[in-house]
Amino acid sequence: MRLSIEPLLKPKSIAVIGGSNSPTRISGRPIAFSKKANFKGTIYPVNPTRNTVQGLTAYPGIKDIPENIDCAIVAVPADIAIRTVRDCADVGVKSAIIFTSGFAEMGKGGVRAQEEISEIVQASEMRAIGPNCLGVFNNKIGWYGTFGNSFDMTKVPPGPVGIVAQSGAYGAHVYNVCQQRRIGTTYWVTTGNEVDIDVAEIIKFFAESDEIKVIVAYAEGVKNAERICQALQIAQDAKKPVIFMKVGTTSVGAKAAASHTAALAGMDSIYEALFKQYGVYRAQTIEEMVDITYACQFGHFPTGRKINLQTISGGVGIQMADAAYTYGMDVAPMPDNVQKKLKDLIPFAAVRNPVDFTAQALNDTSLIKKTISIAIEEGYYDSHIIYLASVAASPITRVACSNLLRDLRKNFPDQLIALCINASHHLMPEFEKLNYPCFEDPSLTVRALAGLSHFGEAFRRGFSSSPPQAPIGMQSVPKTLMNEYEAKQILASAEISILHERLVKSAGDAVAAWKQINGPVAMKIASPDITHKTDFGGVMLNVDTESKVRKTFRSLIERARIARPDAQIDGVLVAEMAGNGIETMMGVINDPVFGPAVMFGLGGTFVEIYKDITFRLAPFGIDEAYRMIDEIKARAILNSFRGRPKADIDTLAHALTNLSLLAHANADTIETIDINPFIVMPKGAFIVDAVILPKSSA
Amino acid sequence: MRLSIEPLLKPKSIAVIGGSNSPTRISGRPIAFSKKANFKGTIYPVNPTRNTVQGLTAYPGIKDIPENIDCAIVAVPADIAIRTVRDCADVGVKSAIIFTSGFAEMGKGGVRAQEEISEIVQASEMRAIGPNCLGVFNNKIGWYGTFGNSFDMTKVPPGPVGIVAQSGAYGAHVYNVCQQRRIGTTYWVTTGNEVDIDVAEIIKFFAESDEIKVIVAYAEGVKNAERICQALQIAQDAKKPVIFMKVGTTSVGAKAAASHTAALAGMDSIYEALFKQYGVYRAQTIEEMVDITYACQFGHFPTGRKINLQTISGGVGIQMADAAYTYGMDVAPMPDNVQKKLKDLIPFAAVRNPVDFTAQALNDTSLIKKTISIAIEEGYYDSHIIYLASVAASPITRVACSNLLRDLRKNFPDQLIALCINASHHLMPEFEKLNYPCFEDPSLTVRALAGLSHFGEAFRRGFSSSPPQAPIGMQSVPKTLMNEYEAKQILASAEISILHERLVKSAGDAVAAWKQINGPVAMKIASPDITHKTDFGGVMLNVDTESKVRKTFRSLIERARIARPDAQIDGVLVAEMAGNGIETMMGVINDPVFGPAVMFGLGGTFVEIYKDITFRLAPFGIDEAYRMIDEIKARAILNSFRGRPKADIDTLAHALTNLSLLAHANADTIETIDINPFIVMPKGAFIVDAVILPKSSA
Repeated sequence: MRLSIEPLLKPKSIAVIGGSNSPTRISGRPIAFSKKANFKGTIYPVNPTRNTVQGLTAYPGIKDIPENIDCAIVAVPADIAIRTVRDCADVGVKSAIIFTSGFAEMGKGGVRAQEEISEIVQASEMRAIGPNCLGVFNNKIGWYGTFGNSFDMTKVPPGPVGIVAQSGAYGAHVYNVCQQRRIGTTYWVTTGNEVDIDVAEIIKFFAESDEIKVIVAYAEGVKNAERICQALQIAQDAKKPVIFMKVGTTSVGAKAAASHTAALAGMDSIYEALFKQYGVYRAQTIEEMVDITYACQFGHFPTGRKINLQTISGGVGIQMADAAYTYGMDVAPMPDNVQKKLKDLIPFAAVRNPVDFTAQALNDTSLIKKTISIAIEEGYYDSHIIYLASVAASPITRVACSNLLRDLRKNFPDQLIALCINASHHLMPEFEKLNYPCFEDPSLTVRALAGLSHFGEAFRRGFSSSPPQAPIGMQSVPKTLMNEYEAKQILASAEISILHERLVKSAGDAVAAWKQINGPVAMKIASPDITHKTDFGGVMLNVDTESKVRKTFRSLIERARIARPDAQIDGVLVAEMAGNGIETMMGVINDPVFGPAVMFGLGGTFVEIYKDITFRLAPFGIDEAYRMIDEIKARAILNSFRGRPKADIDTLAHALTNLSLLAHANADTIETIDINPFIVMPKGAFIVDAVILPKSSA
Repeated sequence: MRLSIEPLLKPKSIAVIGGSNSPTRISGRPIAFSKKANFKGTIYPVNPTRNTVQGLTAYPGIKDIPENIDCAIVAVPADIAIRTVRDCADVGVKSAIIFTSGFAEMGKGGVRAQEEISEIVQASEMRAIGPNCLGVFNNKIGWYGTFGNSFDMTKVPPGPVGIVAQSGAYGAHVYNVCQQRRIGTTYWVTTGNEVDIDVAEIIKFFAESDEIKVIVAYAEGVKNAERICQALQIAQDAKKPVIFMKVGTTSVGAKAAASHTAALAGMDSIYEALFKQYGVYRAQTIEEMVDITYACQFGHFPTGRKINLQTISGGVGIQMADAAYTYGMDVAPMPDNVQKKLKDLIPFAAVRNPVDFTAQALNDTSLIKKTISIAIEEGYYDSHIIYLASVAASPITRVACSNLLRDLRKNFPDQLIALCINASHHLMPEFEKLNYPCFEDPSLTVRALAGLSHFGEAFRRGFSSSPPQAPIGMQSVPKTLMNEYEAKQILASAEISILHERLVKSAGDAVAAWKQINGPVAMKIASPDITHKTDFGGVMLNVDTESKVRKTFRSLIERARIARPDAQIDGVLVAEMAGNGIETMMGVINDPVFGPAVMFGLGGTFVEIYKDITFRLAPFGIDEAYRMIDEIKARAILNSFRGRPKADIDTLAHALTNLSLLAHANADTIETIDINPFIVMPKGAFIVDAVILPKSSA
């Protein structure tokens, strides 16, 4: 259990080691900025060459400071950084911010130096952030533990947003765009090379802090799965939205490419899974990250997606409806009686939804007020957008518009009503004070409200779908290679159904198995060393006479011996033929950081072409399995598609859950699992082929 | 041939009918705004109740003005608008702007009134814009033919951009966002109900005007296909980018839903086709529309997609590379020798591409300059992005950064180099003057450059792929229903290959046909009245013995008689079985405005699930057909996918071109064509089933 990071973010006493007398130098800026911002704590510059630094008494070393230090800034060259960190730890400094770069980011030599810092920190009671970081900023107490000069230009007062980023430059960029958007940030933290404190711990801090309601995070990678999962869960439980920018790739390991599932696992599958499971909003651009953050500040997270679009321009109404389709919002029509009332008010209005009250209505803004009021009061929507073009900015309509919006807010204090207005940004704060999120782009207004609904849904479901107990009798995955029969037996023990099948070692036994199955059979070579049986004709389907069974047995053994003379041949699998159900596929990959993740998709060529697959971290419960199934674009095929009966979704969902339990329980031994195809029937579902690759085979 | 619209957009004399003395009233604003902007032409207010209006001599009627009028603004109530328009036409006014609303947008009565205006205008030599429009604005001559009050606040000087919008509110919104983005607009035009001048004619005017280099258009729908196609082609030939926002749906007609192709034709298929064929950039949001317009101003349209990413932040580099993948840009690695040179300069830089010269390099900006210079000079990229975080804004680095960028531009005057900087907007003009497009969001910088490459490619290919001559002997499509055999014969006459097949009327002839084909055959009921033959077992495959052929003939006839006693039965089709090629589908829909469009996709269930199809307006040449094929996400399946031989793309492309020629030649008679499947073999390709629905059957 590591100590609190409060001394880092809310220090009462700070030391700046290497603190410069020049307020513009890197090592001088934290002092200059904090002084200027009236930081209430004590600032101790450490500088052996001066008596005073920027008007403050300077100390030759950290050991010479007469007080316990909450936070020490290490702003010294790389060659003395290690010694400095050790000194800090020795005198009981509670936390250190290490600006110094030249560590792991610089290659081998740097890695070793960084490990040394890590060892010092781990052995001490001191927490540390960095090295190679831009530090931290607490806007509320004027604590500039950073040399980033964006913060000195801060104009927006502290607010409910906390920002954490691995990269200083990235974090500063996000901070600046937030400032331009009038988003109040209280904490800003960069973690750099993460020798101790990482992005996950800061997210957790934000999630547990009363000051923070919205969490913004940037990471290139995460090294500790448990910490990030825990942090995201605390945030989700606290109903605090997390907007995450994750760039780059996750490596599944070269060996894993032998597996179909692993080959399908894109660069981001694991992070996609993580974010979906914890209700994180994954942004694609800084612009989107800030836009969603902006919307989240207002604290409305509707649990539904019914959206009411009110517009002064028909064209913009259509565009917003298009965007609603794109972002999964429901432009449900107004109830008939509401439509009638609206028509009575403004005969030429479009009243279905979008409601176009037309520019004509501007002649009497009370009409607009009535129209919108009725739609809100009697339409039962989860959220509302009012598009007002430049009405709010025009000198002619401005006052009437302000009054209108003031009255609306008075009557509907708790509704989520976003404004899309075409006004220069200095006009927006007036409406923001009335608790209207304000946007400029109609489509992006819809996107933002969809983001809020995303969180509403995530908060409502919480982490409800906790994984069930593993099935009694679930076998362990061995560390050795398995043939198809053995792999399926293990999967069957996890209650993922297999077809009736037997592993036989003679033509006579094959015939007996065929007789028992009492219908045409599939016959396949069984070998732990052969995963691609079809390559040399190792699978024969629809074998349906005794003589064919005999002949097939012999020819399978012979083909295998010729094609793979080195392979251990365990016999032949004689299996019931699968019925004419829907081919799906599922699998497991084992990520070095996050452990096993389960994949699901529909079978066939198109999975590879359209990448219509989804992943979840194991283990998970049945609800999450249903969400996986619902996420597939080809989901409709599992319904009564083209007159076929509906596939047995419940059994499919249970199979996914059970696969996640099996993968989780055997995280140490599984490299990958491929179940392909998994045939889903109108009732029941069966593994037709499966491969389990144990880790030891890597 | 209609007369020029120059008098509308560059008038020397204007009349404002209903002109108000109040400068804030709708009918007073054009006078007030134009006066304030020093409009050089003569302004004649028409107002029977006053001697002067806003200090100008007023005239009781348009007939009383002593001069020929280039443009008259009709700003009178709906009940006298028709008479006013007639008066204008009578005295030879050259153009009219009809602000008045209350026409087609108001339902039936309005439609009739609008038709009356239309008739007056068509019978005259007067051009007209509106009714129900916000008018026009020529920023260069101070001509405010509009009551939109956004323009009065114009700050950016006139520039190379022309904006046209059907909706006034929408157009004003776009204009304002352009202003915020420092985009210089010369013309701004709204067309309203388009009684005469439409969006297409304005695009053509822009395309032919020396003043305009970038065209921005908004439309809810287009009523005249020829005009829009011609306008877009002129723009493409003139290498003027068109950025288009098209909202809403196109109706293919209820009857058409009987066709598979028509059912697949989404709301936007026709417009998507139009835009693709003419190299238009279709924006999804106003933000995107303005962003791409901004980038286009700089006049660089690279014909390639190789992009050089230079960054001060590793994270942003990764994000830009992610975005490059999304937007189809090629982050080609630096040549080896360049990588080596860069490493020599900055040992810890990432040098592959993205090139991360790291914040450390800031200590010596000459290093950054050298790094970027080498990459530009020796990397042979089509475009470049430099990400500089807040370096350009920071008081500490600002001057050095400016010098760096000035030097770079001096050395590379003709390179497309975009800056992504985190700086408040008032800093950007400095760099824009140096011809650097400036962006704030890294991903969207990449999107903008991808947009420029989009135009570069479109301009290079031009309208090169003009459709070839129709095949000699291509038959006409009759106005009556056809059976499958007849439909295929017509398609075969257009040189779209069919399999060997015969239409037979007796079991004996069926056997003869089977013998001739000399292999298993498909047998299908032939009837012009039956399009869904499989519904009642009207298709039998792999019939391979004489007795089976006989039996099948009789049972097909019987089944058809029972299932569809009303249908005309023409016999049975005996056809060669299709080989094991790749199933594709193609078809034709006939849009009421744009005429026939050809669809292409891969066959099977997934076309319906993933909507992986594409459309082009007929006719088109072979190049366009190849582009259609390349656009399909499942394109890889046509290559040597999973060890299968490559499909015969050339024959497929010719079939698409020929289908477009057939559809074009028979635009009056075809309702829809479905060719499904069209089997593409390693050599050759064949129609297996086809339905042609003639228009008369609607």
